[in-house]
Amino acid sequence: MNQKNLEICKSLINPSYIEQSSQAINQYNHLINVLLTQRRLPDKGWDDQFIRWFLNDIAKMDSNNYVENAGVGEREGRIHSRIVQERHFGLAHGIGRSGDISEQQPKAAGSSLVQRLCSYLVMDSMSVAGLNSIGECLVLPMATGMTIALTLMTFTKHCRPPTAKYVIWPRIDQKSCLKAIATAGLVPVVIENVLQGDVITTDLEAIENKIIELGPENVVCVYSTTSCFAPRVPDRIIEISELCYKYNVGHIINNAYGLQCSKIVHAINESCQSDKQRRVDAIIQSTDKNYMVPVGGAIITSPKKEKQQHKQKEKGEEEQQVNLIDLISKNYPGRANGSPILDLFITLLSMGRQGYKELLDERKQLLTYFRDQLASLSLQFPNCRLLDTPDNRISLGLALAVASGDQQKLSISMIGSKLFSRSCSGARVIELPGSKKSVAGLDFESYGSHINNYHSSYLTVACAIGITKDDIDTFMKRLKKIL
Amino acid sequence: MNQKNLEICKSLINPSYIEQSSQAINQYNHLINVLLTQRRLPDKGWDDQFIRWFLNDIAKMDSNNYVENAGVGEREGRIHSRIVQERHFGLAHGIGRSGDISEQQPKAAGSSLVQRLCSYLVMDSMSVAGLNSIGECLVLPMATGMTIALTLMTFTKHCRPPTAKYVIWPRIDQKSCLKAIATAGLVPVVIENVLQGDVITTDLEAIENKIIELGPENVVCVYSTTSCFAPRVPDRIIEISELCYKYNVGHIINNAYGLQCSKIVHAINESCQSDKQRRVDAIIQSTDKNYMVPVGGAIITSPKKEKQQHKQKEKGEEEQQVNLIDLISKNYPGRANGSPILDLFITLLSMGRQGYKELLDERKQLLTYFRDQLASLSLQFPNCRLLDTPDNRISLGLALAVASGDQQKLSISMIGSKLFSRSCSGARVIELPGSKKSVAGLDFESYGSHINNYHSSYLTVACAIGITKDDIDTFMKRLKKIL
Amino acid sequence: MNQKNLEICKSLINPSYIEQSSQAINQYNHLINVLLTQRRLPDKGWDDQFIRWFLNDIAKMDSNNYVENAGVGEREGRIHSRIVQERHFGLAHGIGRSGDISEQQPKAAGSSLVQRLCSYLVMDSMSVAGLNSIGECLVLPMATGMTIALTLMTFTKHCRPPTAKYVIWPRIDQKSCLKAIATAGLVPVVIENVLQGDVITTDLEAIENKIIELGPENVVCVYSTTSCFAPRVPDRIIEISELCYKYNVGHIINNAYGLQCSKIVHAINESCQSDKQRRVDAIIQSTDKNYMVPVGGAIITSPKKEKQQHKQKEKGEEEQQVNLIDLISKNYPGRANGSPILDLFITLLSMGRQGYKELLDERKQLLTYFRDQLASLSLQFPNCRLLDTPDNRISLGLALAVASGDQQKLSISMIGSKLFSRSCSGARVIELPGSKKSVAGLDFESYGSHINNYHSSYLTVACAIGITKDDIDTFMKRLKKIL
Amino acid sequence: MNQKNLEICKSLINPSYIEQSSQAINQYNHLINVLLTQRRLPDKGWDDQFIRWFLNDIAKMDSNNYVENAGVGEREGRIHSRIVQERHFGLAHGIGRSGDISEQQPKAAGSSLVQRLCSYLVMDSMSVAGLNSIGECLVLPMATGMTIALTLMTFTKHCRPPTAKYVIWPRIDQKSCLKAIATAGLVPVVIENVLQGDVITTDLEAIENKIIELGPENVVCVYSTTSCFAPRVPDRIIEISELCYKYNVGHIINNAYGLQCSKIVHAINESCQSDKQRRVDAIIQSTDKNYMVPVGGAIITSPKKEKQQHKQKEKGEEEQQVNLIDLISKNYPGRANGSPILDLFITLLSMGRQGYKELLDERKQLLTYFRDQLASLSLQFPNCRLLDTPDNRISLGLALAVASGDQQKLSISMIGSKLFSRSCSGARVIELPGSKKSVAGLDFESYGSHINNYHSSYLTVACAIGITKDDIDTFMKRLKKIL
Repeated sequence: MNQKNLEICKSLINPSYIEQSSQAINQYNHLINVLLTQRRLPDKGWDDQFIRWFLNDIAKMDSNNYVENAGVGEREGRIHSRIVQERHFGLAHGIGRSGDISEQQPKAAGSSLVQRLCSYLVMDSMSVAGLNSIGECLVLPMATGMTIALTLMTFTKHCRPPTAKYVIWPRIDQKSCLKAIATAGLVPVVIENVLQGDVITTDLEAIENKIIELGPENVVCVYSTTSCFAPRVPDRIIEISELCYKYNVGHIINNAYGLQCSKIVHAINESCQSDKQRRVDAIIQSTDKNYMVPVGGAIITSPKKEKQQHKQKEKGEEEQQVNLIDLISKNYPGRANGSPILDLFITLLSMGRQGYKELLDERKQLLTYFRDQLASLSLQFPNCRLLDTPDNRISLGLALAVASGDQQKLSISMIGSKLFSRSCSGARVIELPGSKKSVAGLDFESYGSHINNYHSSYLTVACAIGITKDDIDTFMKRLKKIL
Repeated sequence: MNQKNLEICKSLINPSYIEQSSQAINQYNHLINVLLTQRRLPDKGWDDQFIRWFLNDIAKMDSNNYVENAGVGEREGRIHSRIVQERHFGLAHGIGRSGDISEQQPKAAGSSLVQRLCSYLVMDSMSVAGLNSIGECLVLPMATGMTIALTLMTFTKHCRPPTAKYVIWPRIDQKSCLKAIATAGLVPVVIENVLQGDVITTDLEAIENKIIELGPENVVCVYSTTSCFAPRVPDRIIEISELCYKYNVGHIINNAYGLQCSKIVHAINESCQSDKQRRVDAIIQSTDKNYMVPVGGAIITSPKKEKQQHKQKEKGEEEQQVNLIDLISKNYPGRANGSPILDLFITLLSMGRQGYKELLDERKQLLTYFRDQLASLSLQFPNCRLLDTPDNRISLGLALAVASGDQQKLSISMIGSKLFSRSCSGARVIELPGSKKSVAGLDFESYGSHINNYHSSYLTVACAIGITKDDIDTFMKRLKKIL
Repeated sequence: MNQKNLEICKSLINPSYIEQSSQAINQYNHLINVLLTQRRLPDKGWDDQFIRWFLNDIAKMDSNNYVENAGVGEREGRIHSRIVQERHFGLAHGIGRSGDISEQQPKAAGSSLVQRLCSYLVMDSMSVAGLNSIGECLVLPMATGMTIALTLMTFTKHCRPPTAKYVIWPRIDQKSCLKAIATAGLVPVVIENVLQGDVITTDLEAIENKIIELGPENVVCVYSTTSCFAPRVPDRIIEISELCYKYNVGHIINNAYGLQCSKIVHAINESCQSDKQRRVDAIIQSTDKNYMVPVGGAIITSPKKEKQQHKQKEKGEEEQQVNLIDLISKNYPGRANGSPILDLFITLLSMGRQGYKELLDERKQLLTYFRDQLASLSLQFPNCRLLDTPDNRISLGLALAVASGDQQKLSISMIGSKLFSRSCSGARVIELPGSKKSVAGLDFESYGSHINNYHSSYLTVACAIGITKDDIDTFMKRLKKIL
Repeated sequence: MNQKNLEICKSLINPSYIEQSSQAINQYNHLINVLLTQRRLPDKGWDDQFIRWFLNDIAKMDSNNYVENAGVGEREGRIHSRIVQERHFGLAHGIGRSGDISEQQPKAAGSSLVQRLCSYLVMDSMSVAGLNSIGECLVLPMATGMTIALTLMTFTKHCRPPTAKYVIWPRIDQKSCLKAIATAGLVPVVIENVLQGDVITTDLEAIENKIIELGPENVVCVYSTTSCFAPRVPDRIIEISELCYKYNVGHIINNAYGLQCSKIVHAINESCQSDKQRRVDAIIQSTDKNYMVPVGGAIITSPKKEKQQHKQKEKGEEEQQVNLIDLISKNYPGRANGSPILDLFITLLSMGRQGYKELLDERKQLLTYFRDQLASLSLQFPNCRLLDTPDNRISLGLALAVASGDQQKLSISMIGSKLFSRSCSGARVIELPGSKKSVAGLDFESYGSHINNYHSSYLTVACAIGITKDDIDTFMKRLKKIL
């Protein structure tokens, strides 16, 4: 209620009680003020009621919610179902305008405000996660795969010579990674990984050779991946970024769920140091996997400008790269759904700085716990062995011994389905040697294992943000029953 | 409550009352049964409570909501904020899998069910709208522009020879239409419209000449538009589809908000008659503009298979075209947000067949009403004239006389801002001669008017689905005050 | 958002868009302003979103929702469950204070405002219903029975001589009516009704004789009933109020669901005319039955003061009567639940003046329809006959012929249970002669039929506010199947 | 979804995914099964989504929600506003029937189930709180004051001789306590408290003398209070129950917020031991103060039957006492609002056994913390002194020194309003000597201090269930600033 109406309330309710209320409403408005001016995560997360109040205040700013609106356009934000209206808090206009997905909407100041503030909060949350090398971000209502495709398209068109069409891609056996290249109309060049002990890792030499072989001017970028299932480890992005700098080819990092891992974040920070002759053009991350929202959003970030600027003096061509985020914004045709951005906005306000930090810390601690649990299981079950992949700080692998007979083989493949039917989700069993698979027109041996001849079948699990000790304990209990 | 629990209730509550409840629960289950088996709009829309019950039942089918779930993957559908959880009814996994956006998810049977059922309901609703020429549909959580871009990309790659790169496009001054071509990495070829009296319409001859000039093998498709602001009228798609058939080039129809207009729907039906030697490959429509949901979804449809089949005998190459929807599904990299599909699903259940029909009928009647109102305004204000554009059954134009002096010019351009500031949204004032504008690298004269030298400035309004008599009356009242 | 925060938004969002929003927020605040100053039903009901916004604004006024509140009392309005919090919009403090149920709460200005405004809206809605004879009202979160008990207790204690203990009560066979007298610690004196044709009506002579017999100073009041099942008709309250005036005894009217019936309302208006030597002390009505809210509230009203004032000159003792509402407020010990008041408040805002009127009109029309349906059924089924009870404008009775054999008797009693098991609720079958029943220590013949020897068994139905044509048609269809 | 519909889903969705869902739905149903059969708090509280699912299942059991219901009664549970419908989960019929507030409703099996289960959960929660001496409970949708009034009325009428009209009441300065007696139409006999050091406590001798003086047959009961503000301590109920046994008068305990305090609960258990010649007839507690729900409910409990039975042999008259709860149920006239019961039901499911225990434990620990904070404050501010009232385990008192001048006096009274205006709620400042006050026709000296001549002014605070360390710290900080 505004001051004027509060004054009128004094003719209905004891004025001193209204004074008290008025003061409290000021407290509310002050917190909003702080958010609008500082544009950072609140230290302590807001409670749900508070967030709802704020969303209601924002909804009042969109024209479809105006008391006296008369809409005579073709898109008036009318919502037929009250359920739908309520679940979007009356925000109907989505984000962006036909010219630019980041542009503000005249009809929807509230929705535009959510989009703007959300970007600020995402930036701040990333710095909480340790990612301090980035300069800006764009949150898109498309999941990682499609967002990478759009990034590749825009980058190719605006930042690379017309000859560039190859994307050098260290193999990772997740279909949408590869499909993103194909969707973008580019040619994937697979770099097979190398095996070091239990670890599957990047073949840097092969990348360099391939760049030379194809010719840098024909290469769009190296497209590396940080977050993956053990025993594959994050790509050696620091070295890759040095290669990209050296040969002046792009470097796009698929950091799908890497934001939650400080080791990966550190490697990204290092990779973005253009003054150390390293190059990164864009880093893409999933919203659902990093922030616990429903599937459907991704964040594109690019390194800080300052660092690029001093480089620009040396290499004029780099200027375009600096504005890649802008280019993508402008390249996106038309409006888009605002729902994933609203989810993220609500979630960040709800977590607050402290809450997000706690989630990150908890995950770290539970990783150690999970590893210990699996290690002690190895002692108990002789056919299991914890794979030694210390560089993967999210996922763990448990080698499963293969006996010679067919029957045993069967039983390994059944571990996965048994876990599934016992309500354990997310664990994957890779039985080797696996079968061939064709993805986006390319053939892969033992698809799913990231390499052709891994030494043993295994089970992978992930210790991702939001996991609880209870999840791990329940999983271990059920796994033991099955083994 | 299941039968077993209802039996137990009889030890708490009078068994005959429980019998009664049990019977009523059967009535509920029966309606669900009818939906699952018939897969059509309910005749009478479901009330909100009923829809919520059903959504809750569906949510129970997704693994993140399992009572005993233990998640050890990297994407477990965890939702941090309770507000976010509730607004999605606990559905967190989005739609699709990395290989195919239409694929069902093992972890999310409920979300997958929503997607499947929603497609059926959309198909049924389209037949209610009169669109009976189409064979299947794909609902994507991207707005029209991006969906057209994806369609163009997929179509070019899979259905056209490698030489094809030109998209022949009758001019429509809406940025995202053009940008979609650029995003897809293709070359737009603008066909300027022709003027017939007040009407701006398609230059068929120019299209044909351009196909010949470029060579059909180099043309991806003609990309036509059905829904647009008066005085432009829907493209002459029947004739265009005949040209496309004749020259064997693709035909993609941007039917953004055309589904609500029976005249447009009829023209699409006609265009899809391949036995009449006409060709359409895909028709794309917006979910928000046709179904009154928040911005963010689009529906891709393609003509019925049967009709294509008999054609296949003649032209083997056409086979691919038949499966364009499938190809797009498979081309989409990764998962996607389920929220726009959920919105549409809820809305269709809520409307029901009757409700949707009533909305369509009401719009039709209000168009006549709106036209009459504007016509009688023309009599009242001598500087206004209702433009004669009978073929545009959604939008109306009101010519505004331009006096010679600068002052008068100013006042015309101010009509728009005055309407905006009086909470009239959606009306657009086009002041001519307008200025040049560059979109996606192409320059346009008088951008916004769809043609270079229209004879007068004008105001356009739309009579779109969901508009009320109150909207029109309020708008007219305010407009009169301004004129 | 307040003006200050809107100003800050201008550094984030295009200032002209924010201006627009700001103006729209003023429109919102203006409507609130109108409500706060006029304190009447909005002409057009508010939509749900608007109501929610307003409730959120109100919630901010209660101390348990203050951002910076520190609670160190024993009752701080803490709500443990978020579901509970949300369903009450954060309003936790209930209504009233220990001294007075109508008193405002220092900790809960918002809850107090709801209570105050709700009283105003109820008063206004009553005048819409035609009840213009009343002076004030009190909405209590107790259903009709308990509210009548509290009214009787307060009235007896404060407005009657210490000798008064008898309540003269024309028989109505609804247990809680009678129990209310017993709960109040008073002695019910049943006045048997008389039969006139099909109609069961008040025995005025018996009332007068009983007052004389007991002595007016020993009589608390006549406690009459307006709303009842046919073939009983509303008590002859105008004549009763004349008797009460004549003998100077109280008159309390149980108007449970009579507000929806203009004929009853008219009779109440007439009865309240003290200048015509009539007397009414309080009229009690149910909130659920008149306003379509969940069970649990009642409204106590009393006649306008002005009319009483001129009477006071003659009869000094009457002064207390004037403030009966106040006395009840003060007599109520402690706080009470605010939920039924909130329900009513929301409902009245949602209906608006027009909506409430339409509901009243619709009911009236459907009564005629229902009567016609039953009359034509009588023609079809010879053993049925529509009872002729024109003075009951809510309920209708259908006589069911009784055959001599036992078997037939059984089948009549089964009509009720058959209707129940076919999801027809609310219809009651009275099979006569019925059995004795003891209620609150008194014995009744043929309990349920309001009289000892009614001439035939019958079925009663009610045409109550909110009923739909669909309800009636469905009921008639099922009834025909059973007969 | 029931099994049949799940089977149909298999034609839409991969059958193995549906199998998985089906299994998970069984997990859900199993938990409901456990609740229905064990009728105890779930060990671990249910999450909100789960509770909502269950409430939806329950709502389906009420006739107003039946898909095919046709209502032709006068009370059909129709809900006009969708907001209202949703906030009550569609439950509209309230609780009880005209004959008995605990009776089940034919039209509302779901609402009836909530009421039944809620009673079981309350009983179980009370045993968690340590109250194991009670035999049954009745939850009423009226706050403590009105519930006590109803209890007194019923008890007087049904369990005491006709001569009984006096209620012996150790003074407690909370208006509704006293008003409850007056509302019940009984005569309060105030027993002034005695001072022992800082402590204000029960004058047992005065009680006994008063019983003798009035004559036990004229005494309805002693009406004692357990929960109160320091420096008053809980009444000495064990001794009082011995007096009541000895003189064969009733004993009703106002245990408003005592359930949260194990010391009080222990005293009640002791008092209920009829084999130790002690007597308690009813114990009334608030729902909001003990369970953190909105104001508006109360729980009436009575001692276990077994204990009474062996006593019955000696004193036949006691039999009635055993069924007091039943008598109250039957005495309540008509239906009542179900909302407070629903709040409690949701809250208990949400807390679970563990959650409730933790809340109780936390409160206990915070009491010590709060006391320490106030004690150390006393050291800092010489004019403050922590009152020594160890027997009050909920509330604490801080004596405030009174200087001779008027100015100082003013400043003491201002502490309260200063705290209030600094958003500290619940702290009360008692400035002595206070003024006279008349409540329910009786005059009290220094009303608010429970005794006539307390030795110093003081401030009281409560450490009630749900308080947080943050509340205490914030309060202490603000208090220090004011002192």
